[in-house]
Amino acid sequence: MVGGGPGAFIGDVHRKAARLDGEIKIVAGAFDIDPAKSQQMGKELALGQDRIYDTYTEMIRQEIKLPESERIDFVAITTPNNWHFPIARDCLNAGFHVMCEKPMTLTSAEARQLAALVKKTGRVFGLMHNYTGYPMVKLAKDMVKKRDLGRIRKVVVQYPQGWLATALERTGSMQAGWRTDPKQSGAGGCVGDIGTHAANLAEYITGLNITHVCAELTTFVKGRKLDDDCNCLLKFNNGAKGVLHASQISIGEENNLAIWVHGDKGSLEWHQEHPNYLYTRAMDAPEKVWKRGNGYVAAYSAAAGRGTRLPFGHPEAFFEAFANNYRNFTETVKCVIKGEKPSALALDFPDVNDGVRGVLFIETVVASAQSRLKWTPMKK
Amino acid sequence: MVGGGPGAFIGDVHRKAARLDGEIKIVAGAFDIDPAKSQQMGKELALGQDRIYDTYTEMIRQEIKLPESERIDFVAITTPNNWHFPIARDCLNAGFHVMCEKPMTLTSAEARQLAALVKKTGRVFGLMHNYTGYPMVKLAKDMVKKRDLGRIRKVVVQYPQGWLATALERTGSMQAGWRTDPKQSGAGGCVGDIGTHAANLAEYITGLNITHVCAELTTFVKGRKLDDDCNCLLKFNNGAKGVLHASQISIGEENNLAIWVHGDKGSLEWHQEHPNYLYTRAMDAPEKVWKRGNGYVAAYSAAAGRGTRLPFGHPEAFFEAFANNYRNFTETVKCVIKGEKPSALALDFPDVNDGVRGVLFIETVVASAQSRLKWTPMKK
Amino acid sequence: MVGGGPGAFIGDVHRKAARLDGEIKIVAGAFDIDPAKSQQMGKELALGQDRIYDTYTEMIRQEIKLPESERIDFVAITTPNNWHFPIARDCLNAGFHVMCEKPMTLTSAEARQLAALVKKTGRVFGLMHNYTGYPMVKLAKDMVKKRDLGRIRKVVVQYPQGWLATALERTGSMQAGWRTDPKQSGAGGCVGDIGTHAANLAEYITGLNITHVCAELTTFVKGRKLDDDCNCLLKFNNGAKGVLHASQISIGEENNLAIWVHGDKGSLEWHQEHPNYLYTRAMDAPEKVWKRGNGYVAAYSAAAGRGTRLPFGHPEAFFEAFANNYRNFTETVKCVIKGEKPSALALDFPDVNDGVRGVLFIETVVASAQSRLKWTPMKK
Amino acid sequence: MVGGGPGAFIGDVHRKAARLDGEIKIVAGAFDIDPAKSQQMGKELALGQDRIYDTYTEMIRQEIKLPESERIDFVAITTPNNWHFPIARDCLNAGFHVMCEKPMTLTSAEARQLAALVKKTGRVFGLMHNYTGYPMVKLAKDMVKKRDLGRIRKVVVQYPQGWLATALERTGSMQAGWRTDPKQSGAGGCVGDIGTHAANLAEYITGLNITHVCAELTTFVKGRKLDDDCNCLLKFNNGAKGVLHASQISIGEENNLAIWVHGDKGSLEWHQEHPNYLYTRAMDAPEKVWKRGNGYVAAYSAAAGRGTRLPFGHPEAFFEAFANNYRNFTETVKCVIKGEKPSALALDFPDVNDGVRGVLFIETVVASAQSRLKWTPMKK
Repeated sequence: MVGGGPGAFIGDVHRKAARLDGEIKIVAGAFDIDPAKSQQMGKELALGQDRIYDTYTEMIRQEIKLPESERIDFVAITTPNNWHFPIARDCLNAGFHVMCEKPMTLTSAEARQLAALVKKTGRVFGLMHNYTGYPMVKLAKDMVKKRDLGRIRKVVVQYPQGWLATALERTGSMQAGWRTDPKQSGAGGCVGDIGTHAANLAEYITGLNITHVCAELTTFVKGRKLDDDCNCLLKFNNGAKGVLHASQISIGEENNLAIWVHGDKGSLEWHQEHPNYLYTRAMDAPEKVWKRGNGYVAAYSAAAGRGTRLPFGHPEAFFEAFANNYRNFTETVKCVIKGEKPSALALDFPDVNDGVRGVLFIETVVASAQSRLKWTPMKK
Repeated sequence: MVGGGPGAFIGDVHRKAARLDGEIKIVAGAFDIDPAKSQQMGKELALGQDRIYDTYTEMIRQEIKLPESERIDFVAITTPNNWHFPIARDCLNAGFHVMCEKPMTLTSAEARQLAALVKKTGRVFGLMHNYTGYPMVKLAKDMVKKRDLGRIRKVVVQYPQGWLATALERTGSMQAGWRTDPKQSGAGGCVGDIGTHAANLAEYITGLNITHVCAELTTFVKGRKLDDDCNCLLKFNNGAKGVLHASQISIGEENNLAIWVHGDKGSLEWHQEHPNYLYTRAMDAPEKVWKRGNGYVAAYSAAAGRGTRLPFGHPEAFFEAFANNYRNFTETVKCVIKGEKPSALALDFPDVNDGVRGVLFIETVVASAQSRLKWTPMKK
Repeated sequence: MVGGGPGAFIGDVHRKAARLDGEIKIVAGAFDIDPAKSQQMGKELALGQDRIYDTYTEMIRQEIKLPESERIDFVAITTPNNWHFPIARDCLNAGFHVMCEKPMTLTSAEARQLAALVKKTGRVFGLMHNYTGYPMVKLAKDMVKKRDLGRIRKVVVQYPQGWLATALERTGSMQAGWRTDPKQSGAGGCVGDIGTHAANLAEYITGLNITHVCAELTTFVKGRKLDDDCNCLLKFNNGAKGVLHASQISIGEENNLAIWVHGDKGSLEWHQEHPNYLYTRAMDAPEKVWKRGNGYVAAYSAAAGRGTRLPFGHPEAFFEAFANNYRNFTETVKCVIKGEKPSALALDFPDVNDGVRGVLFIETVVASAQSRLKWTPMKK
Repeated sequence: MVGGGPGAFIGDVHRKAARLDGEIKIVAGAFDIDPAKSQQMGKELALGQDRIYDTYTEMIRQEIKLPESERIDFVAITTPNNWHFPIARDCLNAGFHVMCEKPMTLTSAEARQLAALVKKTGRVFGLMHNYTGYPMVKLAKDMVKKRDLGRIRKVVVQYPQGWLATALERTGSMQAGWRTDPKQSGAGGCVGDIGTHAANLAEYITGLNITHVCAELTTFVKGRKLDDDCNCLLKFNNGAKGVLHASQISIGEENNLAIWVHGDKGSLEWHQEHPNYLYTRAMDAPEKVWKRGNGYVAAYSAAAGRGTRLPFGHPEAFFEAFANNYRNFTETVKCVIKGEKPSALALDFPDVNDGVRGVLFIETVVASAQSRLKWTPMKK
């Protein structure tokens, strides 16, 4: 693992989620840009002293010398955004598989480089768009795929948060600090941190591509260098229309990613904060509430059934969605190691192409926000 | 009453709501463009035979001849949109007060004419933006006014419906028929029928004015002549940003008008389909659920308290919100008749200026939808 | 109308609900035990001076002298409980139809007398168990009737309130005063005021009879003379089991009547505070949410369809449920006046037999609460 | 670990939850009464061949021979109920700490024996009443403790499920099989499996003891040997009253444990299926919704804060509650090993005394269900 030092949020989530199924073991890491902190975290994790590294480059250099059965199989990258690219590039070049946090890189040029590198090296590349790991999201995707909603007409997707409603970054908050620093986060603030999740969720469930964006980015907190509010109109490649709004200044909103997909035969609704439920509606019929863990869910969607660890009524949540991405990624890595072809179900995790689209989305939104014209086509 | 013949929806609502408090009595009407139907409805309502009219012009002509104590005090206009203007104009000119359905007129030129006429005649003019009649909406307005949310930064308002997801207008549905006919509805379909309600609600609660619109109108049902889906980005006069989306093709959505208002100190949320609750949030504090009918609501907002007929837990709904507009309108009419000055609470009903703004909003959205530029300033 | 003087709660509700459909007109009344207050209310209602009476006996005496076309058709009784019996008896004897608040009488002996009198006089007797007037309750009843839930096994019904959690009756509150006074309320406090509603709802929906009760009554507020909390186990005549709990001291609960009915094929759930929704569940299938006003509701249940005034998404609530009872009662009265047989749909309102059962339920609960034995059979 | 063989539900949950924080490692086990299956599971878990045992007695015998640094620290018992007692007894006698599933034993005699043994051996004994591991349950407990609700008057606790609404045990279902077999489950069916959780939750949050029970047990599914439905009235040691109902035949209910606690100053409500929220209410004030992960929660309740791994809006669920019990248990074990005194926060996990009370509750309910008298005192 690279990143995830003391006080880091997402690195700790990666570790817990990776541990859940008992199939992944952290054996080495460069956890912090400060070597002392990296040592501290490595000790907390009870790693062997020789497997705690001061830098990721050292980690790569040393690990590669170990016998295959001992060395790390893959690297999880959970650093601030600006480090994703060089670390991922070097790991791939060294022959390691990679699980990378989003957004994948700071620029689409870098993103395309990584995509080419993945193709060239044949390594497995996972991108942690964790929200697509929820079983009810997978059920939703299968409903659209099976045409139960008919032709998709409209998508509304939102991701309001409120934690950056004040200048938290000036209080010493590590989380707020790098997220509002363009050097570490890239050109997008709110749009990069959470808007991409919303866009990814919409494309994942509908199987459609966003083709045009009309965006308004605002920085409400004085002195902040990046946007903290993002509102977009969208067009999709089948003619569907969309609304995407995300915010970091919506006080009291916690992590309220939610989506409504409307087709000409029916519609669906899902809320990340209540992830075990999927609501579907058709003309002149009672609304249906699909509940995770039931036989009828697994019967409808193998991916949803597979992504379920507990029976109905025993709620699952964020860690399990995360772990689902890890499980599919790991199974794919195992297949590649064994020279086998991974199943479609195993391949159901966000990959380098999702990473490219995510960075293109950010760049397009930023361009649109600066444009006087209504529609900006998605960059390619 | 003009309009509200057999099979009409909103005319019947007007009658029931107007009756609720026992202060309004329908004594005359021209209920349908078909005189036979007007007669039928008048008889159902047990009106005197001489007070059932074939046309509204006849009604005006005859009523004005009656002694003041017998003649109608005001006229409720519940016809399709295209009739609002001439009827309202003629009623005002004849000296009657008017309660008119929205949108007030087909064009802003007509709207301004009415505004001038109201000023000139001194008659009371009510516009039935019924959703602002809900007590919890009035509570929300007072919260913003008292600066409990701080400076408003962002407004999200939605009004999804699904009943026009198919070509219902081709099945003989009266409701669908006139709403999708530009001759009767004007230039806006979805935006005119329900988008205006959303815009009005946002302006009513926040006390702000929309200054710019970036709109996308779509007609999803083939052959339909007006838009059935409307998505907008908004700018407000204090720098706040907004998202407004409305739809008539969102299957399974019923009448899901809802609003989220975010300030720099807190936020609020309200849903028309669950109108007895208002949700408020502040930084680092539990969410609060305000429930209609409680002492603490009336203590905070006199307007909310006044708009309440039942104790907490005994739900109120659509009719009562409607009746609240009627009650305030009626009290104002009574004051004007007696030559008294109505109280601020009595004047709390949408009026001709809201009507003008509504028509301007429709025209601006239609113009924006046709523009290549992102932002279209609100027409004046 | 008898009762419903200045400051009264339920009398005002009766008037508003009765007005809604425009078919009922209040023409006479004895509104308060204080003649001055009766006069005051009569004037507020703009009644003719000669139709405002000082006492109900005077009202009966005078009204009966009027020609049939002018006199009142029925009497609505909305006094404290102790007056229900003598007024209803005298009205029936005078030949008037009666709509009476619940509980019908203070004792089952009186209740049986009234039942006999209704039979003898052939007058229409309505009992205002208003909660069965909700359309979704009628839908629930029809679901059980059509055996969609299979054989009923278990019923959980609750009615928690919190408004009497303190000694409100000692602050001069009229509502709290008579409800906690055994002379005016009878032997049951909480059980009489709201427990009966819960029992009535359970029997109405399931079509079953409660046969045995195991009850615990508690008075939590010191000095109060009647119970303010009521918990019961129930047995039904088909072998089903039940739980009924009601309370007036559950702080923050408003009027949270709710029911869960479980059969061997499925179950249903309904909440009075969110009355437009009915939830149904079957084995291994998504939950269904039935929403008032939809075609599929009316297609399933004619009673539910008939009890609906607004389209889906335009919420209806307490007044409309009340008005539904009035509408069916009125239609039945009209039939009786015309000598016609009322339809089954018109007869769908609580009547004198429900009144008898309600009083028997109260007496049985009070007896059970005093018994050392677990089960007390329902009195007959 | 003893139990948790192939196909077992709760054993797998124990493993995943125990792994989450990376502090517990399964190194040995006797996973199934069938040695082949035990071997199979041990291999799946990648245990050393010599640490997979055919029987728990063998496990104890062998492990005890290992050096302290290598041998197991504690034993997790996840077998059917009838095995809990002998295994726990033998483990304690051998000097191992124990984490045991509930109910602790089949009889109160055995339960008391275990309690004595824990006292005598000084070993740490955890009982997996997992629902008290939820942070919002801990917040609720602290609210009662700080007297924010005043004196507790009434508790309503429910635990409806529907999965045993048919004779699932005759279809070969392992989960249904042992749960409906008195030899493996003891005298209580529904009451033993889930009723105890409800009772434990009520006592945990309120800090009160149930003193009297009035119970009705029913077996709705023909041929079933144990109750599948359980309804109780309760009395608590401070005079509070209660209602507890649990069911395995409530179709569509999944795992709907929920509790309402009413005091004379306020009340609270919590639902296991939506565990991240706690609702509180006071007189004449808006309802408050407390949301897991916020600073104000941790500031109010150190136990709730400590039991939280993710920030607000990133939902936590069943596994994390389970893991909280493991974490506190483990920290206590570590302290005991080091000879230190565990903190009050570390000791916040259900222990052998909760186990005793649970078995006494089951025995009391079964006795009450057979009694003609209303109240049966809790066995001691």
